[in-house]
Amino acid sequence: MLSEDIIKKITVQNEKKIILLIMDGVGGLPGKTGRTELESAKTPNLDKLAKASALGLTHAVAPGITPGSGPAHLSVFGYDPVENIIGRGVLEASGIDFPLTGNDLAARANFATMDQNNIITDRRAGRIPTEKNEELCKKLQEEINKIDDVEVIIKPGKEHRFVIIFRGEGLEEGLSDADPQQTGLKQKYTEALNPKADKSAKIANEFMDRVSEVLKEEKKANTCLLRGIAKVPPITPMQELFKLNPAAIATYPMYRGLARLVGMDILDAGETIEDEIKCLKENYKEYDFFYLHIKKTDSYGEDGNFDAKVKIIEEVDSIIPEIFSLEPDVLAITSDHSTPAILSGHSWHPNPFLLHTEFIRKNEVSAFNEQECLKGSLGIFYSIDAMPLMLGSAMKLIKYGA
Amino acid sequence: MLSEDIIKKITVQNEKKIILLIMDGVGGLPGKTGRTELESAKTPNLDKLAKASALGLTHAVAPGITPGSGPAHLSVFGYDPVENIIGRGVLEASGIDFPLTGNDLAARANFATMDQNNIITDRRAGRIPTEKNEELCKKLQEEINKIDDVEVIIKPGKEHRFVIIFRGEGLEEGLSDADPQQTGLKQKYTEALNPKADKSAKIANEFMDRVSEVLKEEKKANTCLLRGIAKVPPITPMQELFKLNPAAIATYPMYRGLARLVGMDILDAGETIEDEIKCLKENYKEYDFFYLHIKKTDSYGEDGNFDAKVKIIEEVDSIIPEIFSLEPDVLAITSDHSTPAILSGHSWHPNPFLLHTEFIRKNEVSAFNEQECLKGSLGIFYSIDAMPLMLGSAMKLIKYGA
Repeated sequence: MLSEDIIKKITVQNEKKIILLIMDGVGGLPGKTGRTELESAKTPNLDKLAKASALGLTHAVAPGITPGSGPAHLSVFGYDPVENIIGRGVLEASGIDFPLTGNDLAARANFATMDQNNIITDRRAGRIPTEKNEELCKKLQEEINKIDDVEVIIKPGKEHRFVIIFRGEGLEEGLSDADPQQTGLKQKYTEALNPKADKSAKIANEFMDRVSEVLKEEKKANTCLLRGIAKVPPITPMQELFKLNPAAIATYPMYRGLARLVGMDILDAGETIEDEIKCLKENYKEYDFFYLHIKKTDSYGEDGNFDAKVKIIEEVDSIIPEIFSLEPDVLAITSDHSTPAILSGHSWHPNPFLLHTEFIRKNEVSAFNEQECLKGSLGIFYSIDAMPLMLGSAMKLIKYGA
Repeated sequence: MLSEDIIKKITVQNEKKIILLIMDGVGGLPGKTGRTELESAKTPNLDKLAKASALGLTHAVAPGITPGSGPAHLSVFGYDPVENIIGRGVLEASGIDFPLTGNDLAARANFATMDQNNIITDRRAGRIPTEKNEELCKKLQEEINKIDDVEVIIKPGKEHRFVIIFRGEGLEEGLSDADPQQTGLKQKYTEALNPKADKSAKIANEFMDRVSEVLKEEKKANTCLLRGIAKVPPITPMQELFKLNPAAIATYPMYRGLARLVGMDILDAGETIEDEIKCLKENYKEYDFFYLHIKKTDSYGEDGNFDAKVKIIEEVDSIIPEIFSLEPDVLAITSDHSTPAILSGHSWHPNPFLLHTEFIRKNEVSAFNEQECLKGSLGIFYSIDAMPLMLGSAMKLIKYGA
């Protein structure tokens, strides 16, 4: 991947349309039958498409490295996942669809239990119900909405998790986690890891004290821990870097958040795969790049539910003709990372990649799955090169160098 | 690719000979018949050689990126195409076989038409005939051969194009183009983009005024535009970096120019492929590295002439036995970039690569073309790694590290 400076110089806007379909975590490993999820699924449409496409496999970050959703998505969006770090706090804010600004410092927070000696006795406050969480956040927000000149925004998540956004001037990154990491230790404040973060540390620690004060009568959730305190990284928007007019169609908030970070318009995707396709069709004229996200391939992989993952793959297969009927100039189908059901989690295995354009070399393949992708004419490459490949195939890149 | 410092430490001189045959732009895409140019051509000699060689595919710069001839050639010569930028002016000077020195600042120039209000009305001076161009350059050279302490060298190109070389001390790079980019705008002077380039800017702008003065009676070509004003990049010669004694055989001046930039001796290649082979044979004893360049595979690709490109491939195939009869220790055959006839231009698709040496692993291939190269034992790699591969195969690299 060339530097952003070079990429900016060689990208050009044109009318050609790109659809990037991410089947989250679709790459897998052989289950009991000896076949992967993709190899087990009946996918006549994907297989037919594969025969007329260029296939390959992509490393999300590097061989052997299992990525989180943040770096895995950034890579496939064409951003260096090592240069562009998305802090946990930012990801959590994305996960509740909260649009962060450049003045925001976001933290993932836990309600926790502290005894009279300031010893943390439960780092998850007994996993309080979400309703209790919402009630406490409402109370906290009423009591704490400003610290010095910094606005404080408090948003509930699930169970004991919530998100804090500190909004104001001069809030720099570089804070340690305010979390003792284990029970039986004293409450821990955050520390500024560099002088620029002094103000951030002061505000965050004062916030923690205010929380403990407001919640002092609570039995379980009487304090909080703060982790992954981070700002939005200074990511060059896709409009500027790639001259694209991009839109995201994703049913889960975190993926909308990731798309928002790189400058995509967030469309109303609804809740089902059918809703997403409807959204794609309705908005097809308005954009030249569509990121279409399928969540459930990953969810069932995480659950270790091989058969359910296979079924979702078959469901996606059934909507391929509808996507194809839009006649995109470039259609790419891949995953951000693999999520083999037998591992019940993300993995380091390369992602199947399919590229359908007018300008491809043939490969002798019969289906869309891990083994066939290995025979593909694109070879094994890095996810970060997927974007130049899509842009080049859409004639959106001029020649590099004379 | 390792750093130049490391490469210098591990390269050794020996008697073994390497021939690098570049079939410019030979990589292609399927045409009407569903086969690429290489797949369409009858190439019994290349196919036979392929079966006894290691095949692979190379990315000239990076996946999806379409390179110009400069970066594409630098890569296959073993130089980083991003670190070593060849400005347009330098390439143009190369293109007229002008040997640049380290004190030269070269610019691509256009004759242009300017009205009495200094508005550029034609950026190509009505594409004046080459003869007129030559006449004007002669006149300009007579009138302008020095500005302050800087020598000015003026060389005609084709039609409205010419090349200026400013030769002197203290001429640094970093100038904007002296070109309004569109007609109807005022004449534009160059600007120094950094203080080191102040002298260069002063000389270049004074040159432009002198040109307008000398040509004021001309109806069409009464001024000039300057673009891509650049110095030769500080490239470590192949002799020093790779301990090679290299020679270039190329019928087109630009490729001789690129070879000259990396330190190759330029041999008298004649005008035809037969001439080039004759030159190779005659000079075979004198050098240990030969860069043999075939231009017409690219030219016909650029013309969109699929059948003529196929014919040239067949012509090259017919001379393979003659090259092979020299018994080089290493014979590499590849392209700098792909030029599919269906695109009528350079493309981002990887280059077929063939390596014939004593020390190769077998691959099950039947021919030299894109699909067979995909099955090759070298895999898909970057062009910049081709040089270490050739050097290693010629026992010209010692062990890296203890």
